[in-house]
Amino acid sequence: MPGRNADGRLRGIFTPNLVPLDERGEINEGELRRYTDWLIERGVHGLYPNGSTGEFTRFTAEERRRIVEIIADQAAGRVPILAGAAEANVRETLRACEHYAGLGIRAVAIVAPFYYKLGPESVYAYFREIGRNTPIDVTLYNIPMFASPIDVPTVRRLADECERIVAIKDSSGDLPHMIRMIQAVRPNRPDFAFLTGWDAALMPMLLIGCDGGTNASSGVVPELTRKLYDLTLAGELDAARRLQYDLVTLFDTMLYQAEFPEGFRAAVQLRGFDMGRGRQPLSPKQQVDLSLLRRVLQCLLAEHGFADEPVGGCPADTLPVDREELATIVATVLDALQRRGLLQL
Amino acid sequence: MPGRNADGRLRGIFTPNLVPLDERGEINEGELRRYTDWLIERGVHGLYPNGSTGEFTRFTAEERRRIVEIIADQAAGRVPILAGAAEANVRETLRACEHYAGLGIRAVAIVAPFYYKLGPESVYAYFREIGRNTPIDVTLYNIPMFASPIDVPTVRRLADECERIVAIKDSSGDLPHMIRMIQAVRPNRPDFAFLTGWDAALMPMLLIGCDGGTNASSGVVPELTRKLYDLTLAGELDAARRLQYDLVTLFDTMLYQAEFPEGFRAAVQLRGFDMGRGRQPLSPKQQVDLSLLRRVLQCLLAEHGFADEPVGGCPADTLPVDREELATIVATVLDALQRRGLLQL
Amino acid sequence: MPGRNADGRLRGIFTPNLVPLDERGEINEGELRRYTDWLIERGVHGLYPNGSTGEFTRFTAEERRRIVEIIADQAAGRVPILAGAAEANVRETLRACEHYAGLGIRAVAIVAPFYYKLGPESVYAYFREIGRNTPIDVTLYNIPMFASPIDVPTVRRLADECERIVAIKDSSGDLPHMIRMIQAVRPNRPDFAFLTGWDAALMPMLLIGCDGGTNASSGVVPELTRKLYDLTLAGELDAARRLQYDLVTLFDTMLYQAEFPEGFRAAVQLRGFDMGRGRQPLSPKQQVDLSLLRRVLQCLLAEHGFADEPVGGCPADTLPVDREELATIVATVLDALQRRGLLQL
Amino acid sequence: MPGRNADGRLRGIFTPNLVPLDERGEINEGELRRYTDWLIERGVHGLYPNGSTGEFTRFTAEERRRIVEIIADQAAGRVPILAGAAEANVRETLRACEHYAGLGIRAVAIVAPFYYKLGPESVYAYFREIGRNTPIDVTLYNIPMFASPIDVPTVRRLADECERIVAIKDSSGDLPHMIRMIQAVRPNRPDFAFLTGWDAALMPMLLIGCDGGTNASSGVVPELTRKLYDLTLAGELDAARRLQYDLVTLFDTMLYQAEFPEGFRAAVQLRGFDMGRGRQPLSPKQQVDLSLLRRVLQCLLAEHGFADEPVGGCPADTLPVDREELATIVATVLDALQRRGLLQL
Repeated sequence: MPGRNADGRLRGIFTPNLVPLDERGEINEGELRRYTDWLIERGVHGLYPNGSTGEFTRFTAEERRRIVEIIADQAAGRVPILAGAAEANVRETLRACEHYAGLGIRAVAIVAPFYYKLGPESVYAYFREIGRNTPIDVTLYNIPMFASPIDVPTVRRLADECERIVAIKDSSGDLPHMIRMIQAVRPNRPDFAFLTGWDAALMPMLLIGCDGGTNASSGVVPELTRKLYDLTLAGELDAARRLQYDLVTLFDTMLYQAEFPEGFRAAVQLRGFDMGRGRQPLSPKQQVDLSLLRRVLQCLLAEHGFADEPVGGCPADTLPVDREELATIVATVLDALQRRGLLQL
Repeated sequence: MPGRNADGRLRGIFTPNLVPLDERGEINEGELRRYTDWLIERGVHGLYPNGSTGEFTRFTAEERRRIVEIIADQAAGRVPILAGAAEANVRETLRACEHYAGLGIRAVAIVAPFYYKLGPESVYAYFREIGRNTPIDVTLYNIPMFASPIDVPTVRRLADECERIVAIKDSSGDLPHMIRMIQAVRPNRPDFAFLTGWDAALMPMLLIGCDGGTNASSGVVPELTRKLYDLTLAGELDAARRLQYDLVTLFDTMLYQAEFPEGFRAAVQLRGFDMGRGRQPLSPKQQVDLSLLRRVLQCLLAEHGFADEPVGGCPADTLPVDREELATIVATVLDALQRRGLLQL
Repeated sequence: MPGRNADGRLRGIFTPNLVPLDERGEINEGELRRYTDWLIERGVHGLYPNGSTGEFTRFTAEERRRIVEIIADQAAGRVPILAGAAEANVRETLRACEHYAGLGIRAVAIVAPFYYKLGPESVYAYFREIGRNTPIDVTLYNIPMFASPIDVPTVRRLADECERIVAIKDSSGDLPHMIRMIQAVRPNRPDFAFLTGWDAALMPMLLIGCDGGTNASSGVVPELTRKLYDLTLAGELDAARRLQYDLVTLFDTMLYQAEFPEGFRAAVQLRGFDMGRGRQPLSPKQQVDLSLLRRVLQCLLAEHGFADEPVGGCPADTLPVDREELATIVATVLDALQRRGLLQL
Repeated sequence: MPGRNADGRLRGIFTPNLVPLDERGEINEGELRRYTDWLIERGVHGLYPNGSTGEFTRFTAEERRRIVEIIADQAAGRVPILAGAAEANVRETLRACEHYAGLGIRAVAIVAPFYYKLGPESVYAYFREIGRNTPIDVTLYNIPMFASPIDVPTVRRLADECERIVAIKDSSGDLPHMIRMIQAVRPNRPDFAFLTGWDAALMPMLLIGCDGGTNASSGVVPELTRKLYDLTLAGELDAARRLQYDLVTLFDTMLYQAEFPEGFRAAVQLRGFDMGRGRQPLSPKQQVDLSLLRRVLQCLLAEHGFADEPVGGCPADTLPVDREELATIVATVLDALQRRGLLQL
């Protein structure tokens, strides 16, 4: 069965999908359904709406439910769905859990409390309350760059005390941290799954014991992410390593060359979907930067046959432009212009 | 006129009030109205619902509106109101602005985007969009420990371009940062106000040019915060300094000895309000810690005549317990017990 | 008596002086003596060789001693000297203390252990060992951006246990932290002095209870730093505030526009001293940047009559160039050039 | 040939050895020679004196040379030596390089400048100056938790420009960072080696392309580290994974349960070497903690047959004590004692 191990663990690649928007900035239902089909057809093991990539915080509570409803309806049981269910507080989150349970969702994923940076005791208390009352399996979601961190002893306590907590998605990208979690939890909970949200470490994460990944790049190049997963599990390490290297380049470009998740949105657009403009406004400078980035992404995708080369072709070396170096060149130019009196700073 | 300078700037102490909850965890309207009166009678210059102290992220969008409605109705124009208006995205935030404008609110306060950590260009684009479309004056809210930072050039750009952006509340507590902002903005915008959200630096912030503060401790000891403000403006620096020192002790105890804003909630309760339990669950350990903290707070408040001493009296030295030292003592005790075979770790 | 309070506390402005180097990169003794005289004549209350500004880590152990010997000899008792004495380990540090005691130094300043980031217990153990064995008064030096932090309970323990530890120099710039330290230490140790190393907060630090400062900008504009100190103590707050604002501008420019302490070196050079090249090599880009910075600094110094305006004059607004904005302009230009085919990235 | 690949790259496990001290705190030459032999006999591929584990900053410049001389003499060519050569400045560092070249050292390792946190341009300029003038191969040493970080573009620039820079030791433990470095450097410099200093990620680092490691735990359990290296290269991933998990437990215990490198010193002592007391003083509390830690380490080593179980035996579960949980228990006990009037806080 896709998305699950023989021992019942969640496994494989779950895609934290972006949400296409129409011209008025509303959810573009038709395009979201088309995108859902496309992802499933290209082999992802599951879908993961309302993740960070899906910009869950930028939608209203009503919209978040609508997104899950559309995807669940369209997937129609072909792949399991992990639905982000974090709301304003425990009570609202539990209401969302109940709603998603009614839709036949496989499990919810709940990010640790954010805005306030809470310590381990609070994170424990929060998830314990949810774990005791949820009508549906729960995946913890650790993303310390955005939300309160879930540390190893807290994962262990929750796994030991709450059997409806069945997995953790960890986006720290910290490999020893993953090892420590698996060591602490697996002896008591062989059914507990470990998923990595950090695409740049997918292969080594799988090799040290992870069950799968919730990887934003699988929403852009599902073929590659799936292949990397398969090669790694098959022990074809040389081929897997080459693919992992390529994925780092693509992932870094999408992640660091624009405000997250704009780079991913631009890349999904290049795969043929009308994603619309994101809800976070862009400054004029950012719009210029993004159009430069689109060209770089098009070249990267073209290398793998996922897009045509842009008009004018691609440079031999598609490594991301080194902004530091560019700045040096520019400083030198400006200095020269200034010394000749052509420029007044 | 309270809450405003001769040149129209916001000024004085705005209280970021907590919201009392009833036994079912719902807004306790009666207590909120009583608390509003009490704060106004004790001299705060304005009220500031839906701030971080007010746990705006733990209420639903509907509840946030209800909180402002209650406070605006109860204040009935006696003091100006600054209403936190941040919602899921620019459009929702603007809708809240329109609603609050209809309630006769003086200005809204909008925190920089959170969860995602955005860079200066995005923060600028976000507030520019709001500043261009808001029907009500806007206060920027910079709280880098929780949300994307608003840096000095961004404040300057926004102040220069958007006249409806009229103030910044800064909770960084960074004094040179405040100086840099004032230097960058005041020449072009003499009507732009600078408010500090960091109670532990209120006196020096006022001395270097701030117009006032949005201070959580003013919800606990409005008498003291107001007096500190008055003494500082009157140039009575020795008396102000002594009060500032006391405020640091109280503020630190409320802030660092429990998960924010539980220490403040406990202290407001000690001032005679039924605050209810917060929406973030507490672990058993945290409940024990909180009951210890209540006793410490009661002693601190008793020193200023704001509470009776607890049964059993207060220690001579009410400095917050040094947890590090306590841990050392405990380690020594445990070690001794263990060596005598009384304890097996 | 300069450099000391009636109650024996260190007080006033101690200059953490840079060390001029000759063409071979060796200590330029003649220039160091001339610089020492110049600083004393312009009113600094004391000298502070082997501080961070003095690049103590870039000299050998022998050179560090030589620097103190030259300055002590040249000062000849006119002002007290605080000598940086941190060496590779406690034993070496104590040897340096003994050597400096023999030179008639007023006190040593010892930075917390660096490279390894040590916790409070280790920092305590380190200073306790020194405090018990030093033949000379010791100033703790807290600079958390470079070395292990010295927290408030540690300062209190050391002040309580070691009477030869007589002061702390704190370069965190954190005002509430300074208040907490003073609260914790002064009741038991009225002779213990608090000096701030953060020039951008000098005025408010003095107003909340500091005894003085060890301020790198006093090595560049000793006249201003001294005047700011005097105005603040005299309660002329409006004049002091204006001067503090100017000092923030100058300090920020020297600190953030080049790798520390190159901006300070360039500024001292502009005051008429042959500082030589620093021991940390500069890249070609950095050399260009530094020459641009020199012009900005010359304009800032010219505003106060401390330098002539550079040939070509100064812009109306001498605020530090906003690199972010500059980058935007450049990006726009490049984009335009590229679209017209004039540039191939 | 040990310590080198067919293509000339450094490879394998280099041990960053601790330095035994005698009762007076001086280098214990006899024990250092005995330890050197023991490490070589247990299969480490090379030795690495004056690393962070070797506490290079706590020795004088003369002592650092002495340490390398002793080890080079004792190794007598049996394994290659990588000698830490960072001194106060470029000139002193180059002098050390010359000295070590004369001793027949394979290469030096030079940490990025520390104390001051330098940016990429400065780090580049520093290493370029060294790379152009060194008479011996240079390994860059990136340890961002202690020293200025060496970023990927800087590694690439240095590898491209300086052929005597032949390797990087990276202790960040960041796997995608390692991939990025290899991608950026290897195409132009197939002879450039990548070594990881983060024991907790050794296996996955080797699997994604690293040539070896400089791992502190190889000074404690050289047999295990070597076996992990061999199993990983042989593709015996299940066995390697189990060993990596065990190594994480041991490494974490040595690293996080005491101030670095005291846990490693205690463990080497348990392997039969008289290490003496470290040069960083310990507080009474730390001495107690360390004796508790010794027992835990003895149990961990006993599991692998490297030590006898301590008197009294080992607990079934040798996971590091959870201090958080312990604190909870203690708080509960204290609370109970207090409520019965047996304890007055």
